[in-house]
Amino acid sequence: MPTGTHPPLQRGASLPLAGQLAERYAQRIRERLLLPGARLPSVRDCARQHGVSPHTVVAAYDQLQAAGLLEARQQRGFFVRDSRPATARATARAPAMAMPRQAPMDATALIRGMFEADAARSPGLGTLPADWLDPTLLQSALRRLNAADALGLQVSYGDPSGDARLRAALGQRLHDLGIHATPAQILTTNGATHALDLIIRTQLQPGDAVLVDDPGWAIMFARLSQAGIRLLPVPRSAQGPDLEVLHALAAAHSPRAYLTVSVLHNPTGHSLNLAGAHKLLRLADEHDFFIVEDDSYGFLAPEHLPRLAALDGLRRVTYVSGFSKVLTPAWRVGYLAAAPERLRALTDTKLLDGLTSSPVLERAVALCLEQGRLRRHAQRLRERLATARQRVSALAGKQGFAWAAPPDGLFGWLDVGVDTERLAQPLLDAGWLTAPGALFSATRCPGSLMRVNMATSQDPTFWRALRACVDALQGRAAPP
Amino acid sequence: MPTGTHPPLQRGASLPLAGQLAERYAQRIRERLLLPGARLPSVRDCARQHGVSPHTVVAAYDQLQAAGLLEARQQRGFFVRDSRPATARATARAPAMAMPRQAPMDATALIRGMFEADAARSPGLGTLPADWLDPTLLQSALRRLNAADALGLQVSYGDPSGDARLRAALGQRLHDLGIHATPAQILTTNGATHALDLIIRTQLQPGDAVLVDDPGWAIMFARLSQAGIRLLPVPRSAQGPDLEVLHALAAAHSPRAYLTVSVLHNPTGHSLNLAGAHKLLRLADEHDFFIVEDDSYGFLAPEHLPRLAALDGLRRVTYVSGFSKVLTPAWRVGYLAAAPERLRALTDTKLLDGLTSSPVLERAVALCLEQGRLRRHAQRLRERLATARQRVSALAGKQGFAWAAPPDGLFGWLDVGVDTERLAQPLLDAGWLTAPGALFSATRCPGSLMRVNMATSQDPTFWRALRACVDALQGRAAPP
Repeated sequence: MPTGTHPPLQRGASLPLAGQLAERYAQRIRERLLLPGARLPSVRDCARQHGVSPHTVVAAYDQLQAAGLLEARQQRGFFVRDSRPATARATARAPAMAMPRQAPMDATALIRGMFEADAARSPGLGTLPADWLDPTLLQSALRRLNAADALGLQVSYGDPSGDARLRAALGQRLHDLGIHATPAQILTTNGATHALDLIIRTQLQPGDAVLVDDPGWAIMFARLSQAGIRLLPVPRSAQGPDLEVLHALAAAHSPRAYLTVSVLHNPTGHSLNLAGAHKLLRLADEHDFFIVEDDSYGFLAPEHLPRLAALDGLRRVTYVSGFSKVLTPAWRVGYLAAAPERLRALTDTKLLDGLTSSPVLERAVALCLEQGRLRRHAQRLRERLATARQRVSALAGKQGFAWAAPPDGLFGWLDVGVDTERLAQPLLDAGWLTAPGALFSATRCPGSLMRVNMATSQDPTFWRALRACVDALQGRAAPP
Repeated sequence: MPTGTHPPLQRGASLPLAGQLAERYAQRIRERLLLPGARLPSVRDCARQHGVSPHTVVAAYDQLQAAGLLEARQQRGFFVRDSRPATARATARAPAMAMPRQAPMDATALIRGMFEADAARSPGLGTLPADWLDPTLLQSALRRLNAADALGLQVSYGDPSGDARLRAALGQRLHDLGIHATPAQILTTNGATHALDLIIRTQLQPGDAVLVDDPGWAIMFARLSQAGIRLLPVPRSAQGPDLEVLHALAAAHSPRAYLTVSVLHNPTGHSLNLAGAHKLLRLADEHDFFIVEDDSYGFLAPEHLPRLAALDGLRRVTYVSGFSKVLTPAWRVGYLAAAPERLRALTDTKLLDGLTSSPVLERAVALCLEQGRLRRHAQRLRERLATARQRVSALAGKQGFAWAAPPDGLFGWLDVGVDTERLAQPLLDAGWLTAPGALFSATRCPGSLMRVNMATSQDPTFWRALRACVDALQGRAAPP
């Protein structure tokens, strides 16, 4: 009988059981859910998990070996082969080096996971689960777009800078954060990731050095590496970025920029304090680098938390945010605010890469922002998250786990005492998709930390499975 | 009294009249609607056009000179200064050279014109005017998105490859064109321009040589130059691309790719014939380059016109199209179809540059495609365009103008016998925004051709103004 959460294989289907099983593993390997070097379950365990005979598993592993996806190591079992060329492997290991032009697959695998995962089984998820969002708010906005006054929108490219009404509403939102930007200083984008992409393409060149938070957002590391940028990782703890290291890196490498999440940092959940923000801006002045402040999680934080753009007045700081985290990721609306002289070049890049962003969805976001609808929804989310954080903290504590710092916003940064990349595999086998710390390390350095989503890790079953898998890796118990 | 179509200046406004006038010209210069070297109207003409005193004009020109935007040339009048650095000017003149990293402003000025222009006064427009589109079709699709079965869409990132239902509908559309692509071979994008951008970023490297249609789409030249690509212009006449030149260029430069519009080519309106398509693909085989087939105008052509992707079976050809031209530019939905091994890397680039494209708008396009709604709308557009082409041809003939080839689809390629870049200025002064041939030249070479939009040039007044301005430039009459 199959155990765990594996969907049963189809007996009597056109593909034999061994072929189905091989294809299932092949897909995981292709999507990098099983990373090179990962050990597959023993033949006996695999047979039990999938409810098939050991003979079927041997046949499946044989097929995977023949396809070059697995290798057998004597006395040790079956392992996923590293199929990248040797040069790519070497580059991936070298820190602060430009990676090859091709996108590193591990990062895209992480995002693919984001899109394919069942949220209820994804304590490592990077977003709020869909059922925390408010479809009524979205539907009401779409309905209002069909009203007569929005007809013109439906048939035009729109303004390359973005819908004027949205930019006016964003000016108000920024004002509430203490950031003074006229609508002419705001450029809309297809989500915050697109805003960051425009900045990289417009303001950075291959070979430039750029300071990044470490840990930080894997997609950004991948995107910067793809653009030939050298990463300078700045360690980030509960006290914010390590400004001594930042100072030393700035003096040694003359970076062009620092890309940072100031509020509810992903993956740690920490926010920059006022003194840190002030010191950071002084270092930026001293070493003449610009700052990109990614405030993607900002709506989940109280408005009074300091933004770098508020202190700096959009002089050195370009501010980036969006609506995927609290409103919906389905509309792909983000924006940036910058000094006018930067904005013109960014707008030209946007024109060349796709003309305009959708004026229809931008107006829909404006309708959600106006009259405080989104603000009230975000307030409800913050309250619900606060409750979830209490519950998750209690569950973690009950299983004897400790946080690297108190969780805040959507995330907690958990130290489990064993290599979380190794831990991810048995947890995935048990049906839980986690986010090991190595995914957020600029140097892909493994470690004992992992990102925990406060909304999707409220099931005590997960915490018991985590405990069991940690104990097993520490040799204190048999695998679950 | 003001003449022409200049909006009146505001008397008693906070900015004095001279300041308002200076700002109006400064804006045109910044947006490159007035190009470096262009002569401004004489003080007397300007005063008459704007209904102000000559004293006000002198004050305005003084301000523009002080701002470095104008220069006075003795006995000749006032001219727009070229404010680019000397190196940029030199590069812009050299054909087939990689341009500087910064986006060439002329191309973006052209698109800005697209977004800001009054369609009724834009015989050079690149799209159908908004009032030819069908808002009822769009509204009905948005309404159906709000139905219960589409709720899940509203709160998710969607599949990075694109909405599955749209990709199924696109597979059917491609099938109608003789192109066989499974939904797994289709990737949705934020419009066709974004699809081309993804291909450039994924499959080309700085320094690569790429064959392009000449004349061709200015945005593509700008985007390729920005990416450090060397352009190899292939002359395009009514007989299609000049394959002898293409052959010679391929032999001399080993290009990586050929970017071409096979059907209803922009700006000429020509389509490739079957024999040309076959020969072209043989040359691609011989010289081992891949082909990007941009079919943005495809819905305005009969389905039986040959597509390169149909002959080639998506082996060497990547097919790009979108919905901005017939459905709406406001939704920003495009797509590409390619061989599976190309598609994976393109999808990764899309993930890194903005995660997903909006599943909401993609589903809306699917709803328009299903049940033949969009097909029927496109059929009506084709009929209306055929009538417009007859009318425009008669108007052009009546004024003694000749086409470089019979107009087809949305565009005609008109030969007026004088430099159309010089012609654009007096026509703009008379209120008509035209598209001189130099904008479509890969080497920015001036000439006597211009693109005429069949939908927006049906006003006999335009043709009379064109005749008068051409005559004036030929010294046969006073300026209108």
